[in-house]
Amino acid sequence: MRATVMYGAGDVRVETVPDPKIEQPTDAIVRTLRACVCGSDLHPYHTMDPADGPSPMGHEFIGVVEDLGSDVDGVRAGDLVVAPFAYSDGTCEFCREGLHTSCVNGGFFSTAQAEVVRVPQAQGTLVTLPVGEDSELLPSLLTLSDVMCTGHHAAVSAGVGPSTTVTVVGDGAVGLLAALASRRLGAEQIILMGRHTDRTDLGREFGATDVVAERGDEGIERVRELTGGQGTHAVLECVGHLPAYEQAMGVVRAGGVVSRVGVPQYTDGPIGFGMFGRNVTLTGGAAPVRAYIEELLPDVLDGTIQPGRVFDHTVGLEDTPGAYRAMDAREALKVMVRP
Amino acid sequence: MRATVMYGAGDVRVETVPDPKIEQPTDAIVRTLRACVCGSDLHPYHTMDPADGPSPMGHEFIGVVEDLGSDVDGVRAGDLVVAPFAYSDGTCEFCREGLHTSCVNGGFFSTAQAEVVRVPQAQGTLVTLPVGEDSELLPSLLTLSDVMCTGHHAAVSAGVGPSTTVTVVGDGAVGLLAALASRRLGAEQIILMGRHTDRTDLGREFGATDVVAERGDEGIERVRELTGGQGTHAVLECVGHLPAYEQAMGVVRAGGVVSRVGVPQYTDGPIGFGMFGRNVTLTGGAAPVRAYIEELLPDVLDGTIQPGRVFDHTVGLEDTPGAYRAMDAREALKVMVRP
Repeated sequence: MRATVMYGAGDVRVETVPDPKIEQPTDAIVRTLRACVCGSDLHPYHTMDPADGPSPMGHEFIGVVEDLGSDVDGVRAGDLVVAPFAYSDGTCEFCREGLHTSCVNGGFFSTAQAEVVRVPQAQGTLVTLPVGEDSELLPSLLTLSDVMCTGHHAAVSAGVGPSTTVTVVGDGAVGLLAALASRRLGAEQIILMGRHTDRTDLGREFGATDVVAERGDEGIERVRELTGGQGTHAVLECVGHLPAYEQAMGVVRAGGVVSRVGVPQYTDGPIGFGMFGRNVTLTGGAAPVRAYIEELLPDVLDGTIQPGRVFDHTVGLEDTPGAYRAMDAREALKVMVRP
Repeated sequence: MRATVMYGAGDVRVETVPDPKIEQPTDAIVRTLRACVCGSDLHPYHTMDPADGPSPMGHEFIGVVEDLGSDVDGVRAGDLVVAPFAYSDGTCEFCREGLHTSCVNGGFFSTAQAEVVRVPQAQGTLVTLPVGEDSELLPSLLTLSDVMCTGHHAAVSAGVGPSTTVTVVGDGAVGLLAALASRRLGAEQIILMGRHTDRTDLGREFGATDVVAERGDEGIERVRELTGGQGTHAVLECVGHLPAYEQAMGVVRAGGVVSRVGVPQYTDGPIGFGMFGRNVTLTGGAAPVRAYIEELLPDVLDGTIQPGRVFDHTVGLEDTPGAYRAMDAREALKVMVRP
């Protein structure tokens, strides 16, 4: 089959690789209907050492079940399914608590920008979707594999609700969907920090009430002006770079919560008295997407939310390298891949 | 009056200073009945630059009201009162939310190791105690000014309850009272990390179910052995030094909470993928003691909890410098000062 492989920073190729097969009785084989490129894929695209590669790419996909291991119940060949970016057994103590990203038998997908994907722990991982292969909802359903649920995780972890003021740091797909998730949870003031007007315009349609284009101290000052000088109860950090973290800490209200879903590209950061003296909480993490799919699916199916609007480009599998380039150059917000 | 003044690291003196007077109509003047030395007082005792001094000391006290500003209601001359370590108006948006340490008219006491203390925002700050000056409960009531409520804040912020496993990092007064608070909130497994047997023995009486004397990787391994390999849901960091933070991050379960109440003696620390990938939350901070006094007071008055047992030495005001030395040398757990 054809699959996307990264050889080093800036070097993405599409190659012929062996077809995946059932390896464990808990596996499924899924033919990819739609995949996409994630903002987190851009991190290795910027930094990957060729000595660490080559590495297959992709962790977001929907597809059709082609083959099943003998231990998989609840999913059938021919089912149209979505997988979260992390697979999980659905039965361990962490899965039962809704923390599927810490499943004791779990792991992360990294081969989804390809024609076919092997799905470990298929019974716990896959969710059947009640639509056909030609459904117009496929883009929005695809976001349930990561970005919609990740934005939701940011908001839920921060305790966003009707009485919560919210700042979203970052106008990538996850940031925009964190705004959508906050609106869905009832937040009335949602400040979106981002400086790409085409993106923040979509953010406004998703529910952002204010947009702050300034960054650094100026951006912090602007958010404080919008919030009576205090900052917001919840800050959803959807970037992953240290300046975004610092921005988040600068706009959070005393007693508030900074919730991170951007994969941190740093190991250390400021957690001293500025945070402690104000009782600021730092939470979030790798989103347990599997925990949220059933909750968000009905709103996607009935059109209440349309997270698929984050896809502004679609390419065939052979053009995946161009999708990375376009997202890196900010020419595309998020690119869907149609094998 | 006589008061404790720090001139630099290791240099604590008792001096005659002007008597405090009512300065604002919201002030009260309180004659100190009992004060004490806090673990956090040892931080400047280790590091204070003489160029930053001299600095009056002390933020924990109970006493008798001697004088009142014209705007103070609800407290009367002659009342025996406790003050939290931070004063607050009790009416601002933060006080109404229970975050009195962020009161817009608030601040921190720093003159309590003295014969008399001026109390700003007296109406919001002081809590009248229904006991006499000769009550045997004075030591336990004094802990409501800081260490008991601070241990409680650590536990409450971490969500400690009957189904929560807990690790307490640190066997100082706050650590021992964090164990007591966790027991009071229903936790059944409470692992106390500390290596001073006389202290951890008291911790066991307060409710600790296990004691881990090892530190670093060995200590982390030991806690994991005690928790089926996973660590505990809640970790209460009651020290404030970076190794304690690192220890806390090492023993917290995925999806768990590290709650800090030890004043951080560092500005940066590890918050990278090790924390993010496991969805670990970092919370806590300067305890809003005022929010907790009414809740804990009945349990102190009826003897359900005896937090005053952390005081193992008592000195007169002239001997306060010796109290610092004894606590620094670990000869004393916590020293009460009786002016």
